[in-house]
Amino acid sequence: MEDVFRVVEKNQDVYIKWLQELCRIPSVAAQNRGMDEAAGKVKEWIKEFCQGQSKLVATEGFPVVYGEVQGEVDKTLLFYNHYDVQPEDPIDLWTHPPFSAEIHDGVLYARGVADNKGNLIARMAAVHALQEARGKLPINVKFVFEGEEEIGSVNLPAFCRNHQDLLAADACIWEFGYKNADGRQQVSLGVKGMVYIELICRGASTDLHSANAAIIENPAWRLVQALHSMRDDSGYVKIEGFYDEVEAPIESDRVLLDQLIYSEEETKEKLGIDRFVNGVSGHELKEQLIFSPTCNICGLTSGYQGEGTKTVLPNVASVKLDFRLVPNQDPHTILGKIRDHLDKNGYSDIELKEFGLEHPARTNPQDAIAQSVVMMTEKVLGQKPTVMPMSPGTGPMYEVCQQFDIPAVSVGVGHFSSNNHAPNENIVVQDFIDGIKLMAAVIDDFSQRGGDEL
Amino acid sequence: MEDVFRVVEKNQDVYIKWLQELCRIPSVAAQNRGMDEAAGKVKEWIKEFCQGQSKLVATEGFPVVYGEVQGEVDKTLLFYNHYDVQPEDPIDLWTHPPFSAEIHDGVLYARGVADNKGNLIARMAAVHALQEARGKLPINVKFVFEGEEEIGSVNLPAFCRNHQDLLAADACIWEFGYKNADGRQQVSLGVKGMVYIELICRGASTDLHSANAAIIENPAWRLVQALHSMRDDSGYVKIEGFYDEVEAPIESDRVLLDQLIYSEEETKEKLGIDRFVNGVSGHELKEQLIFSPTCNICGLTSGYQGEGTKTVLPNVASVKLDFRLVPNQDPHTILGKIRDHLDKNGYSDIELKEFGLEHPARTNPQDAIAQSVVMMTEKVLGQKPTVMPMSPGTGPMYEVCQQFDIPAVSVGVGHFSSNNHAPNENIVVQDFIDGIKLMAAVIDDFSQRGGDEL
Repeated sequence: MEDVFRVVEKNQDVYIKWLQELCRIPSVAAQNRGMDEAAGKVKEWIKEFCQGQSKLVATEGFPVVYGEVQGEVDKTLLFYNHYDVQPEDPIDLWTHPPFSAEIHDGVLYARGVADNKGNLIARMAAVHALQEARGKLPINVKFVFEGEEEIGSVNLPAFCRNHQDLLAADACIWEFGYKNADGRQQVSLGVKGMVYIELICRGASTDLHSANAAIIENPAWRLVQALHSMRDDSGYVKIEGFYDEVEAPIESDRVLLDQLIYSEEETKEKLGIDRFVNGVSGHELKEQLIFSPTCNICGLTSGYQGEGTKTVLPNVASVKLDFRLVPNQDPHTILGKIRDHLDKNGYSDIELKEFGLEHPARTNPQDAIAQSVVMMTEKVLGQKPTVMPMSPGTGPMYEVCQQFDIPAVSVGVGHFSSNNHAPNENIVVQDFIDGIKLMAAVIDDFSQRGGDEL
Repeated sequence: MEDVFRVVEKNQDVYIKWLQELCRIPSVAAQNRGMDEAAGKVKEWIKEFCQGQSKLVATEGFPVVYGEVQGEVDKTLLFYNHYDVQPEDPIDLWTHPPFSAEIHDGVLYARGVADNKGNLIARMAAVHALQEARGKLPINVKFVFEGEEEIGSVNLPAFCRNHQDLLAADACIWEFGYKNADGRQQVSLGVKGMVYIELICRGASTDLHSANAAIIENPAWRLVQALHSMRDDSGYVKIEGFYDEVEAPIESDRVLLDQLIYSEEETKEKLGIDRFVNGVSGHELKEQLIFSPTCNICGLTSGYQGEGTKTVLPNVASVKLDFRLVPNQDPHTILGKIRDHLDKNGYSDIELKEFGLEHPARTNPQDAIAQSVVMMTEKVLGQKPTVMPMSPGTGPMYEVCQQFDIPAVSVGVGHFSSNNHAPNENIVVQDFIDGIKLMAAVIDDFSQRGGDEL
């Protein structure tokens, strides 16, 4: 692979410029900003830089950018990424403007650079470099870049149902991946599912003077009570039947967990916390992170939020919640159980808005693509990766891959302090360059493998 | 009094213009807007229109406007009002701009017109009309107009301690008063106290991707748990010792409560609610409104509050709370009990910010000023008022009056739908004119009374 790696090094400034250019487009799906521009640019680059064919495939929301690059043999590796990013607020906490893509001390700061534009560009750059070095790819490559990952991939299931032919592949490299605090690359073999909802509790027809609090119900208090009914202080979700379908980790999961290094002290220090939830550590911490479903408050809103005081009895209160699901929880079933829980506990008046449902998904660690990624990571980075049986994050891996029996593996150019979904999102530029090499090496290695390596 | 009433009618357009002019100044104390302008204008008007003496008395916050007008005999009636108003948000729910003071169908819409500028101007106009009709006031009148009522009257206690001489009076007319839904004027003889606080719960040093929720504590959840520990579903405050000093209503309170008409059906219809807290009605509803202390959520804030979704684990969550207190709860003691409750229940890390403490206060219904107000209300409005033993609202009546044994009575020009502290605050213009007549009649009647009328 040295021939290809030399090309990557020669072209690295160009690849960094592509990444900066894409990061400067504020493609925030939740706010419908810059989406057309980002999709159009990526579509053109597949043609221009990867010598492939590409098109925008319309959905009921933002289009999917689809691309194909022909290889020497009839074997296909699919790359799933997304061109949308999270909103950048709270903007005043950014050290560098979130859409300027500035590089300081070898670190590139931008909303979306770790999640997921760094990986998207690294994969296109790998194809570019392989072709420049060797003239042609060893196998076919497909790109599926969606525009709604950060808003729950709402239209991706329909895309996958309607375009099975476009997805047909022998394996998939999933969108994300990070280095741990100890510098080791993480490879993960699945994702959690998700139910993202908003609960809205309404009171009187207008805000009232809070002198009325003795006799008029306060929707903020009702929301607090409803939330308290859903989860206990330890994080256990009290919704009836929530854990019914949860699969306990199996023996091979425990082996992977034991090999996994989670840098507890560094994490606590970085985050300024004294302990993890319920004081867990070691194997228990890792098992909880990877195999526990969660019910998380993403946002709380009610009444007066300005400076100083206002003595008001608000007429509405709302909460945004994400539930992360593990195999074999079904998001549709869980959504029904949440509604049932509210109804049975006297909260049938609380409105439930659904913002996205995703299935969990997992890949067998013995699969060829998993072996390719693990071995090439060691080769390119000079160190064995840690393998997570499943990521604590979420993505539409079930829709894109698992339902069609396409094994999928996550690896990418982010790191432990990349601040995904938070201010000062960043990647290390050298990780981006290494990530390009890794992707090129995986395409090459996977082309030489048979099926499962048992 | 017909001579005076004729003058009020002749001058009514002028009095309305004064009111509009004052309402067009956005004197929001919480946001330090328009405060100097409002204070300066009112101070000048006491000289110009009431032929009195006036000055701004500095405090550590906004100044108190103090005024005196000499009368024929050495007896003094004090008027306590405030020139500050609540913030106007949510501004998009206003039908007319909150600081334009427009009149539509005989109703004047403006932030602060009911609370409290309508009353402030009505009292100055009453002094003006009495003087125009009769040359001189029968007794002395004093004005104490503070600028921090809507932010908890934080510097008024020090003003009262330092300027006892300015407050010396035989009785006080308190700032507010309303007509009920049945059109009857309400007279009230006390106020609840208050503790206004913000609780701030912090988590990690930065917002995190919500995939971390399985192992990193979420401050929004901790805040929900802490809030739930403070109050049960029925509204009962679970803070240890919260009710220890509460005085139960006495027999004369029960008589007043029985005479009090609370328009339950109209209120429910107007507010779009099916029931009052815990389904109470009748005597129990009135007793709860007037004699129950409360713990109210004024505002809840955490995490992502924009459109759509963001899968974030917030690093801070906060709540603004007002506790309304009844005799003999002491706000300093209650504040200590809140802190103790948090500490004893594992929330010692939750920051508590205090924004204002106020004592409850009450006046004897047999007092001369109470009798004057009740009788003159019947005379001017042609209908007996309802007398509330205490208002469910709050104000610094203890600081200004009760600690110096000055009896205080609340009556004013607002009404049941005045929307104090809410969008579309308003008063009926005719109520304002009637309110001027009532204040003139009270000054005249009180001048002829001795002490308590038993």
